[in-house]
Amino acid sequence: MEEVQVDPPKRTEIRIRILFTSICHTDLAAWKGENESQRAYPRILGHEASGVIESVGEEVTDLKPRDHVIPIFHGECGDCVYCHHPSTNICKNFGVDPMRKEMPSDGKVRFWSKGRGEPIYHFLNTSTFSEYTVIDSSCVVKFDPRLPLKKLSLFSCGVSTGVGAVWFTANVQAGQKVAVFGLGAVGLAVAAGARARGASQIIGVDINPNKFEKGKAMGITDFINPNELQKPVHEVVKKLTGGGADYSFECTGNLQILREAFLSTQMVLGVHAKPDTLPIHPMELFSGQSLKGCIFGGLKGKTQLPSFAAQCLEGAVNLDEFITHELPFERINEAFQLLIDGKSLRCVLKL
Amino acid sequence: MEEVQVDPPKRTEIRIRILFTSICHTDLAAWKGENESQRAYPRILGHEASGVIESVGEEVTDLKPRDHVIPIFHGECGDCVYCHHPSTNICKNFGVDPMRKEMPSDGKVRFWSKGRGEPIYHFLNTSTFSEYTVIDSSCVVKFDPRLPLKKLSLFSCGVSTGVGAVWFTANVQAGQKVAVFGLGAVGLAVAAGARARGASQIIGVDINPNKFEKGKAMGITDFINPNELQKPVHEVVKKLTGGGADYSFECTGNLQILREAFLSTQMVLGVHAKPDTLPIHPMELFSGQSLKGCIFGGLKGKTQLPSFAAQCLEGAVNLDEFITHELPFERINEAFQLLIDGKSLRCVLKL
Repeated sequence: MEEVQVDPPKRTEIRIRILFTSICHTDLAAWKGENESQRAYPRILGHEASGVIESVGEEVTDLKPRDHVIPIFHGECGDCVYCHHPSTNICKNFGVDPMRKEMPSDGKVRFWSKGRGEPIYHFLNTSTFSEYTVIDSSCVVKFDPRLPLKKLSLFSCGVSTGVGAVWFTANVQAGQKVAVFGLGAVGLAVAAGARARGASQIIGVDINPNKFEKGKAMGITDFINPNELQKPVHEVVKKLTGGGADYSFECTGNLQILREAFLSTQMVLGVHAKPDTLPIHPMELFSGQSLKGCIFGGLKGKTQLPSFAAQCLEGAVNLDEFITHELPFERINEAFQLLIDGKSLRCVLKL
Repeated sequence: MEEVQVDPPKRTEIRIRILFTSICHTDLAAWKGENESQRAYPRILGHEASGVIESVGEEVTDLKPRDHVIPIFHGECGDCVYCHHPSTNICKNFGVDPMRKEMPSDGKVRFWSKGRGEPIYHFLNTSTFSEYTVIDSSCVVKFDPRLPLKKLSLFSCGVSTGVGAVWFTANVQAGQKVAVFGLGAVGLAVAAGARARGASQIIGVDINPNKFEKGKAMGITDFINPNELQKPVHEVVKKLTGGGADYSFECTGNLQILREAFLSTQMVLGVHAKPDTLPIHPMELFSGQSLKGCIFGGLKGKTQLPSFAAQCLEGAVNLDEFITHELPFERINEAFQLLIDGKSLRCVLKL
């Protein structure tokens, strides 16, 4: 914990007072510096949060001080060719960019180490592990102030990614069969999203047996622990479903698991992944399976997130199940450890 | 040319008198023995054809002698879990299987070398380079006898694969932008299918400049010859389309071209391909692009092909453009050479 100086927002930016933030595996990977793009130090991590606007730049028209907002790491400028396209949520100007460490508007930072006067880098357009942060307005979404800010923080990443992948990217229909590989927050959000859509079977795959009870509460109907099997997971999924799941959701970032997910199904969706090219043979696509990726659940943050969150908050998804722990912000290191140990889904930190 | 003995059809099979057949690159690859699965000799190749039923096995109920039919290499048994599924055209029992060289019903052949009494293997459920052939009824589709048999032969493979990929697998909509890599019969069928759907831009990519004039007649609006470029094809496609095509269709079977097709677009569809796993990095799927394969254009042969062919024959696709040459069956070697030289789309052989 150290004191930092946070500059005022420039033209299109806003400064937010963060009230709740939580930790996702992407923060953990960046904290460990797992790949080159993450090794820009010193840096303020964090991208799942909610808070209240403190001040806005002179060109910001859609947001004002005291608005209740959440940051989104994958922004929506509303002006680029992709933002105008109905079937993609890519944004040329404010889409997620792990290499970016300064503000897009002027290529400079807004954080300064108070003692040293040294610049501190930004992270994923957001940097929420701070009482105040500066974010471009394209990466901020406003909500009705009557909605609970603590739960809204879940929509910055985990719940939107998982439920969005089911609703927007795969568009799962009632009666379909789904397999979920990896039962972290994203995987369980997939299960909850599939249950909300009326999926008839939701198979959960994880090597941590403690995830199974939680999974049941989120809609998982069948469990597979790969460590207890003598044969490949996809054979078991094919048997359980009578031919293969309609959709597989790969939520681990492991390429061999992505391959099992692909083989388990007619269609597959990888939620995140690490280096190395796809271990899929082109002829394996012949039967009509498709391999589809998505970022932020395939939803456009500024325009689609408010109604999406409203549906979830009205009960389509039980958000309380995701908040397994709450701690004051000062105990963030304990929250990291809970995630590392696989004990928490989301530990919400209160500032 | 040699005389062969063709056995009568067994229980679920039919014997067809072939009247028209043509050659596709898959026949060419098998003729050259490009991979292990194709090296079963002696063998009767050929899978694009049309003809008249001569006799049927005792359990065949949907077909009778004198019916006008075409063979399909990717059958539809109508009974398996996949045939009952609305969104796949896989068939567990009669789907395409390059390793299969005998009849599925009894694992034996129906062709015999007359002089030697030696068995002759089948090819892709069909074997149409013969005056008579025996095929399982799951791989035979009946048509109204008033329809032109010569044109109907195109629906056994090339036109169904290309147009089907656009209509069934990608489901291209009016106003969308399409890139086609490889302007053989399948690639040009993709162009024709995209034009029928009202695509606003159809970019054709081929290293053979002779394909360009033909392409224009089939709907191609912009041409790219990779050999004349100083930069990657996908950069040119992105520039021409103002951000990327809505769909890329890879119709060459070359993995580096598949990669260019993928990078050119938001979505990509590979029509066929050779060994080696996909040269796509998982993170490259993040922006929501999807990689989708299909066999036989994604359409169910027995149930969907008749109405599909009717739409094409009524003018949605100009079928005459595909038949660039006609020869008597005896001159099949010349027809192979026309294909090798890139001079023909389809040379229809008359028996």
